[in-house]
Amino acid sequence: MELAMIGLGRMGANMAERLVRGGHTVRGYDPGDAARQQAEARGIVPHATLQNAVSALPSPRVVWLMVPAGQVVDDTLAQLRPLLSAGDIVIDGGNSNYKDSQRRAGELADAGIRYVDCGTSGGVWGLAEGYSLMIGGDAEAVATLRPVFATLAPTPETGWGHVGPSGAGHFAKMIHNGIEYGMMQAFAEGFAILKKKEAMDFDLGALAEIWRHGSVVRSWLLDLTADALKKNPDMAGIAPFVSDSGEGRWTVAEAIDLDVSAPVITMSLLERLRSREHDSYADKLLSAMRNEFGGHAVKTQD
Amino acid sequence: MELAMIGLGRMGANMAERLVRGGHTVRGYDPGDAARQQAEARGIVPHATLQNAVSALPSPRVVWLMVPAGQVVDDTLAQLRPLLSAGDIVIDGGNSNYKDSQRRAGELADAGIRYVDCGTSGGVWGLAEGYSLMIGGDAEAVATLRPVFATLAPTPETGWGHVGPSGAGHFAKMIHNGIEYGMMQAFAEGFAILKKKEAMDFDLGALAEIWRHGSVVRSWLLDLTADALKKNPDMAGIAPFVSDSGEGRWTVAEAIDLDVSAPVITMSLLERLRSREHDSYADKLLSAMRNEFGGHAVKTQD
Amino acid sequence: MELAMIGLGRMGANMAERLVRGGHTVRGYDPGDAARQQAEARGIVPHATLQNAVSALPSPRVVWLMVPAGQVVDDTLAQLRPLLSAGDIVIDGGNSNYKDSQRRAGELADAGIRYVDCGTSGGVWGLAEGYSLMIGGDAEAVATLRPVFATLAPTPETGWGHVGPSGAGHFAKMIHNGIEYGMMQAFAEGFAILKKKEAMDFDLGALAEIWRHGSVVRSWLLDLTADALKKNPDMAGIAPFVSDSGEGRWTVAEAIDLDVSAPVITMSLLERLRSREHDSYADKLLSAMRNEFGGHAVKTQD
Amino acid sequence: MELAMIGLGRMGANMAERLVRGGHTVRGYDPGDAARQQAEARGIVPHATLQNAVSALPSPRVVWLMVPAGQVVDDTLAQLRPLLSAGDIVIDGGNSNYKDSQRRAGELADAGIRYVDCGTSGGVWGLAEGYSLMIGGDAEAVATLRPVFATLAPTPETGWGHVGPSGAGHFAKMIHNGIEYGMMQAFAEGFAILKKKEAMDFDLGALAEIWRHGSVVRSWLLDLTADALKKNPDMAGIAPFVSDSGEGRWTVAEAIDLDVSAPVITMSLLERLRSREHDSYADKLLSAMRNEFGGHAVKTQD
Repeated sequence: MELAMIGLGRMGANMAERLVRGGHTVRGYDPGDAARQQAEARGIVPHATLQNAVSALPSPRVVWLMVPAGQVVDDTLAQLRPLLSAGDIVIDGGNSNYKDSQRRAGELADAGIRYVDCGTSGGVWGLAEGYSLMIGGDAEAVATLRPVFATLAPTPETGWGHVGPSGAGHFAKMIHNGIEYGMMQAFAEGFAILKKKEAMDFDLGALAEIWRHGSVVRSWLLDLTADALKKNPDMAGIAPFVSDSGEGRWTVAEAIDLDVSAPVITMSLLERLRSREHDSYADKLLSAMRNEFGGHAVKTQD
Repeated sequence: MELAMIGLGRMGANMAERLVRGGHTVRGYDPGDAARQQAEARGIVPHATLQNAVSALPSPRVVWLMVPAGQVVDDTLAQLRPLLSAGDIVIDGGNSNYKDSQRRAGELADAGIRYVDCGTSGGVWGLAEGYSLMIGGDAEAVATLRPVFATLAPTPETGWGHVGPSGAGHFAKMIHNGIEYGMMQAFAEGFAILKKKEAMDFDLGALAEIWRHGSVVRSWLLDLTADALKKNPDMAGIAPFVSDSGEGRWTVAEAIDLDVSAPVITMSLLERLRSREHDSYADKLLSAMRNEFGGHAVKTQD
Repeated sequence: MELAMIGLGRMGANMAERLVRGGHTVRGYDPGDAARQQAEARGIVPHATLQNAVSALPSPRVVWLMVPAGQVVDDTLAQLRPLLSAGDIVIDGGNSNYKDSQRRAGELADAGIRYVDCGTSGGVWGLAEGYSLMIGGDAEAVATLRPVFATLAPTPETGWGHVGPSGAGHFAKMIHNGIEYGMMQAFAEGFAILKKKEAMDFDLGALAEIWRHGSVVRSWLLDLTADALKKNPDMAGIAPFVSDSGEGRWTVAEAIDLDVSAPVITMSLLERLRSREHDSYADKLLSAMRNEFGGHAVKTQD
Repeated sequence: MELAMIGLGRMGANMAERLVRGGHTVRGYDPGDAARQQAEARGIVPHATLQNAVSALPSPRVVWLMVPAGQVVDDTLAQLRPLLSAGDIVIDGGNSNYKDSQRRAGELADAGIRYVDCGTSGGVWGLAEGYSLMIGGDAEAVATLRPVFATLAPTPETGWGHVGPSGAGHFAKMIHNGIEYGMMQAFAEGFAILKKKEAMDFDLGALAEIWRHGSVVRSWLLDLTADALKKNPDMAGIAPFVSDSGEGRWTVAEAIDLDVSAPVITMSLLERLRSREHDSYADKLLSAMRNEFGGHAVKTQD
């Protein structure tokens, strides 16, 4: 197929290259000159403007967005809309909030433009190993895009699927990331306990390597964790600071909205917040309270 | 009544003084010279040795232990035992593990010595306001000690009671402290959220003062918290470091042993542990994992 | 003062009566005939329509809303607006979301109407004991209302205060309720552990009564809990089903928005959700997983 | 090699068969006649008594225990001890508490018997796919047993290793299971949220299948979960009742002993306890409290 990839950052450029390798023609647009130049070297047809990239497409046009979630998606859609016609397809492959995707699909549907929300997992490894794709939206549009998904996925028949109506793809990706938070935190806690058991002097990388084969916890995250532990067993130079990119928060909010108790996903998010509180007011107040009622000395700081 | 107070630290000396004020004769022993001297100034009859203090008592002897939980209690009991006779009463008013109290009661029962475990709450305020006393052990021994409990409690009829067999007093105190952890953490979290809402510029001490009157959360802990917030609204100079003294851990362990899910008490303990992890291996590993799968940059540190 | 109370349900009627007892003239409106009749018997001047109640007021008019949070507040304000003039004051004393209060204050400010958000705590006991009032909005309007707040509060000088700009009152109440959830859950867990310790056969009501005097956990919630435990120690006839009314959810969402980790308040909300999941899909799936990897038998149900 | 397998239950018989398939001679003992008969059909040499099995072994004898953790291990060791000589090796492949393994190793060391603790993961799938083996104890004994571990593991070079001194194997397995609890709970929560999002009508089995390929959460547990979801999407007939077998509790206790905050592993254990509380006293008391302060109606039950 022929399509345009809007956004040639780490994810967009890799996905475009995987599509090129799979025989597709990919027209690429990114506001950055360097991003466009690197894309060209990877077989992507660069365009200096969004308009050029889109107008070069055959009809029905297929435009894949791989831009930061939030306002950038809305801004890009505002620019795209006058360039598109009824029957064209826009895919948002980023980590958009599913409610935004539902709204956008509704807005574009008025003009006959089909909007597909595609949750994309696989990270930097997706170029080589393929991406896991959770797709929401119009079934016919998804069917039209089959060759694209078949190339992006690990194999033509696995790792992708139409999972529901508009928003369902991003909803599924949101939950995927919530689960990911929980799994990551479970591993992190387990290895932290092992590390603290100094009397046993565990080689954590070697232990992770053992678990990779035959154990119940074997997983891709463990493969990566084993790699990280072997390279840097003491996590030297790494700050205990864990970012979060939104999907975990949305998962927690959605669970509460649905009256589902999800303590582990929730605590894995809270632990990330906690990792960034290095001067916790709550803890200081707790220390002050203990002093108030029990006369326990507070630990002081400058 | 006449009794011996063994251990004249902050709690022991205050309790002894409250008993003296209430008309009891209190013989005090503490290995520290200064502690004994200060006790004398507070109306307590000081004794330079445990033996002297105990042998001066009328029969049946009443000996109240207010020493650090754990080995010190066992060591003190080992010294006491040859000084006591059948019918004598020993009270452990400290924060002993209830299983130890059960064991100790059993050991002393062989010699006819009655062992009473008394959970004591009230902290440094107990001298003036009275102590809350949860008492376990032989009902007859508890009845004998009624004048002592009536004086230590806020009023002769309130704030003390025989709650069950040996160990029940310390069990109840353990749970009391577990609840206390949860309440303290709830307040600390709430004020931390208010503090972080900078746009509203809350005066936390003034708000706590409002809540002290008529609100659902009014409580003694809030009284103390309001005081702490007024004195030091920014918690200046206080390190975010929260100690724990054992009862929280025991409560969590007991809940799990009993197959009772107690998430709030449990998380309030874990948060105290967390307050003391300033270079969390788990968080570093989470950051490393994110780098492995997503190419997300880690935040570095020296 | 003279004011109108809109909404004569349990909270509204009690507050109106407390104001009447304090010498204020209260005009009351409620769509329910019975509510208006009962109000009249309590000294409130009943009006059959909102318009009548408001137009009978002297200028500047003072209108207190005590209606269910959400759409009902907006609907009531839509009806009120044409009846009001610049300088009039509307107070929302319910559990509105603070963001709604900020929006409403802004909308009414365009017409010169002053909107005061008042978080109100005290429940059914407020009539007799007074309410704790956290007040947000224009300082001058709050000053004008001083006689009203002084009467509603436990004493003229305690339990009420102007805590910040529009929304601050409902923000403070939201956090108050989050703390309340945490405290309640801490007590509930503690008593559940005590209950499960069958060997000790605790009298929970008696134990709660002891703690009410001199202990660190003494509090109004404990007073009420002691009462509940004495009346019904086995909680006979009460379903293990805990409702929530919104403020807990908002507190959790706000904490996450502010990047504050609040595990205890969060878990106390999740436990309420959990209390209503009597056929948890997650738990069934966990059981199925254990069967899959370990051959562990699942427990079956119809 | 030649060795005795003591305990021919699901795990023991499967491991013995895998060893037989790998060319080892396995003498088997189990108190159950049926277990011995089935073992014989699988190529294991059955013995009617422990003594027969052990005395048939060449020296140094190798005895693998695959019996329930706890007292059964101690009882079996008491029977074994007179049958063994200095230089013999006993391996405990079950889920023993690591502290028990340390104690047992010390006791047997006095007689020159080498005790190896081997954490074994892989469940019912280990027969076909091999086991993940975390081995603690004397390095020389582990080296002697290399052929046995090489056969039990997925491949001779992967999935097994000597991880530390006595107890380290069971310690590592304990943590493995703690992580497993967390991962399982993360998946269970995620799928429960998806299930509750009825508007999207997700096919959970199909979604799990998508995630199995290319996603960040791909894992063996997901493979099994996908299988369970395809077979029984509604979890029909399965009670929401999740057992736990000890390692999770020990992990939580160990983390607290080491002052490591492990909220996700902890909450995954508590959720299992919670799944078995179908008439929660805490929830009833919360409902009663809400009634006390707010007049909120309790939901009743028979």
